[in-house]
Amino acid sequence: MGSRVVVIGGDAAGMSAAAELRRRLPESDEVVAVERTDQTSYSACGIPYWVAGEVGSADDLVSRSPEEHRKRGIDLRTATEATAIDVDACEVTVWSEDVEETIGYDRLVIATGAEPVRPDLPGIDGEGIFGIQSLADGQEVIDALAEDPEHVVVVGSGYIGLEMAEACTQRGIDSIVIEALDTPLSILEPALGEKVANAMRSMDITLRTGTSVTGFTLEDGRLTGVEIEGETLPADVVILGLGVVARSEIAQKAGLPTGMKGGIIVDSTQRVTGFDGIWAAGDCVVTRDRVSDELIHVPLGTHANKQGVVVADAIAADLLGEEPRLEFPGIVQTAITKFCALEISRTGLGEQQARDAGFDPVVATIDTTTIAGYLPDAGELTVLMVADRPTRRLLGVQIVGNRNAGLRIDAAATAITAGMTVDEVVMLDLAYAPPFASVWSPLLVAARSAVKMLSS
Amino acid sequence: MGSRVVVIGGDAAGMSAAAELRRRLPESDEVVAVERTDQTSYSACGIPYWVAGEVGSADDLVSRSPEEHRKRGIDLRTATEATAIDVDACEVTVWSEDVEETIGYDRLVIATGAEPVRPDLPGIDGEGIFGIQSLADGQEVIDALAEDPEHVVVVGSGYIGLEMAEACTQRGIDSIVIEALDTPLSILEPALGEKVANAMRSMDITLRTGTSVTGFTLEDGRLTGVEIEGETLPADVVILGLGVVARSEIAQKAGLPTGMKGGIIVDSTQRVTGFDGIWAAGDCVVTRDRVSDELIHVPLGTHANKQGVVVADAIAADLLGEEPRLEFPGIVQTAITKFCALEISRTGLGEQQARDAGFDPVVATIDTTTIAGYLPDAGELTVLMVADRPTRRLLGVQIVGNRNAGLRIDAAATAITAGMTVDEVVMLDLAYAPPFASVWSPLLVAARSAVKMLSS
Repeated sequence: MGSRVVVIGGDAAGMSAAAELRRRLPESDEVVAVERTDQTSYSACGIPYWVAGEVGSADDLVSRSPEEHRKRGIDLRTATEATAIDVDACEVTVWSEDVEETIGYDRLVIATGAEPVRPDLPGIDGEGIFGIQSLADGQEVIDALAEDPEHVVVVGSGYIGLEMAEACTQRGIDSIVIEALDTPLSILEPALGEKVANAMRSMDITLRTGTSVTGFTLEDGRLTGVEIEGETLPADVVILGLGVVARSEIAQKAGLPTGMKGGIIVDSTQRVTGFDGIWAAGDCVVTRDRVSDELIHVPLGTHANKQGVVVADAIAADLLGEEPRLEFPGIVQTAITKFCALEISRTGLGEQQARDAGFDPVVATIDTTTIAGYLPDAGELTVLMVADRPTRRLLGVQIVGNRNAGLRIDAAATAITAGMTVDEVVMLDLAYAPPFASVWSPLLVAARSAVKMLSS
Repeated sequence: MGSRVVVIGGDAAGMSAAAELRRRLPESDEVVAVERTDQTSYSACGIPYWVAGEVGSADDLVSRSPEEHRKRGIDLRTATEATAIDVDACEVTVWSEDVEETIGYDRLVIATGAEPVRPDLPGIDGEGIFGIQSLADGQEVIDALAEDPEHVVVVGSGYIGLEMAEACTQRGIDSIVIEALDTPLSILEPALGEKVANAMRSMDITLRTGTSVTGFTLEDGRLTGVEIEGETLPADVVILGLGVVARSEIAQKAGLPTGMKGGIIVDSTQRVTGFDGIWAAGDCVVTRDRVSDELIHVPLGTHANKQGVVVADAIAADLLGEEPRLEFPGIVQTAITKFCALEISRTGLGEQQARDAGFDPVVATIDTTTIAGYLPDAGELTVLMVADRPTRRLLGVQIVGNRNAGLRIDAAATAITAGMTVDEVVMLDLAYAPPFASVWSPLLVAARSAVKMLSS
């Protein structure tokens, strides 16, 4: 009799793990995956582009369908929700069409993902208030926007908030974005966030910063308005962009350790700390920041996929009596998004994050051009660089600019991962040719500025 | 009496050094710069875009004019050619309008740049054969193309060859490109060069590979044809794109050490090896490859600017009795160019270069998309990755693809500089969002492929 690995969750982390396990394990071992929706391996990050009309259908966002997974030998059970884990009996309780079942496991993978924050406010359950996480959520928003709402309010100006506001604009619908802080996109330093605010205003998106939603007004259960401090904004559709939290209730009930935003705590092979035989991966876990060494919750498909592969390696090694080959080393909080013509990216720590982590940050901000300034397509580009005063180490980089700006963050993320100083960054051999960069590439200009500040 | 620093050469390296020296040194010290043309600090790399009509005038390519340099206190002598260095007497001989003069120096900077290779072939001095290095060269080509030549032949398919062929296309002029090797752009592995060849053909540029020019036919001293093996191609205009060599005759005559392609040999502060008081920087020097540890000649404005700053720091420290703060650590042969819609970049070592340097290379090549494959703008992208089998170290990366492909090379250059293994590259936190990358970013896909090859 072979072993059975049960995977809870059929999106990026879960199905990466399941697919890799199926490749590594002998046929006598079972790989069972349980997914509460009808879909697997879809790009939640792609939903705003589907809503915007850039992507034709939800199917385009599915990288591997349930049928494809089953063909490859995974015992995949969709529309099946895991409701409890018995860590002593090594059993998972699942429900499918009102039928309860228990599935025993030899090794368990928890990849339950995340869910949009729905603040406990009056009227939050009204009809017309949407979160964005599953393809079903996306379809609901598309249907709601197809009815030509007069007033769309986006609550929160993180990625999803911005992307959904832009999607509305692309559908010809103006929106109001409400942000509790003073500038949008809180992963950016305020000076860069202000550039995003300007871009929003130029798109006829109304941005209300420094104000919080206190409730929703309903009529017959249907949304009619959004209450902010001392004012009610009319609203037919509300899109919640307040971030997500780990969907880890099942893990918590089973006594597994959780941290920030409910993320399950795991070791470097993604094994749940203190629990032999249980691994977790993806948006439901916390992960180590490689600069601050702190555990943080950063739900992102790229981490989920890598962690899924690490889990599979660890379990395969465990079952096959081998040494695991992979570890997930943590992240540097790299993120990128686009708002209309503006590319926005960041990596490492911001100024306050750096201070909180015990560094002594200096911050250099420079303005340059995206490509050689004498070419007609040259656009604006701002780089903000954070360095540690005593060690001169590069701690963080944030970029806002036009085409050719955003992906420069990859080199910064690599330099931060390598522990480079800003002096070393100045001398990096980054690509130069007029259609791609000035002779001093933007990151080099920023590093020179940081060096100058450190020397003064 | 203060000291006098003499700088030979008024382009990137020379004027970077002169400007930085002027900032660092007391007013009593003189900074004299000698430039043989009428211009300073211009972007030779921008000439093809000027010829193509994307840049309005030569002035746009000048980042700082002679007047601006003089205003900042540099004793700049344009139209003045240095012809000899007397290293014992510490004197430079210069000619200006047929007047000879000697200028004594306390410290000397040689930044004489590079010159296009003009092979010693029959007819090479005929009218209508152009190299591309100075702004005057650019103007001559523009004038020649303005006369609507029937037959333009580009000799060589390096950057300049490709960029000039594209510039001709943009001016509505078809061209023939002749390349001695089997694929264009020899800095690329042949498999990727073939993609460039296909792009050229799709642009109605005739590419003749595997054949060399044996001479030029002239009538009354004017070009009429290009002789290749066994054939004469009619030609009104020939553009030489055979690369450049260091313009180091003056250094060689003075007994200074030179290496590959005549590049002057310097230490890590750009001081000419074995010669106190003389520094050299820019296209006239050889520099250390950080992977192979060999001295190579890579003329590029970004290196020239950095080296100029390093030279200024070394000389200022020397004169002021301080410790130098900067070293030029060498390069990793990063290069980027664009050919029509194709972005082309490379860094580190190619397969044969790696073998020559004593590594045991494995080469992984992957095809992916520039951004999430479900978005309408997704294009093709190929990454070739070279790794060292025993150490698993990343040695080189080459990229050919559509928009959003090329600049990814910066992260690869940074990873190579940091000495990362391909296993470490797989786990890099590179930017992910659908409009910028798939969930596995192209470099990660290539690194996974390399890891797989190393494990088998």
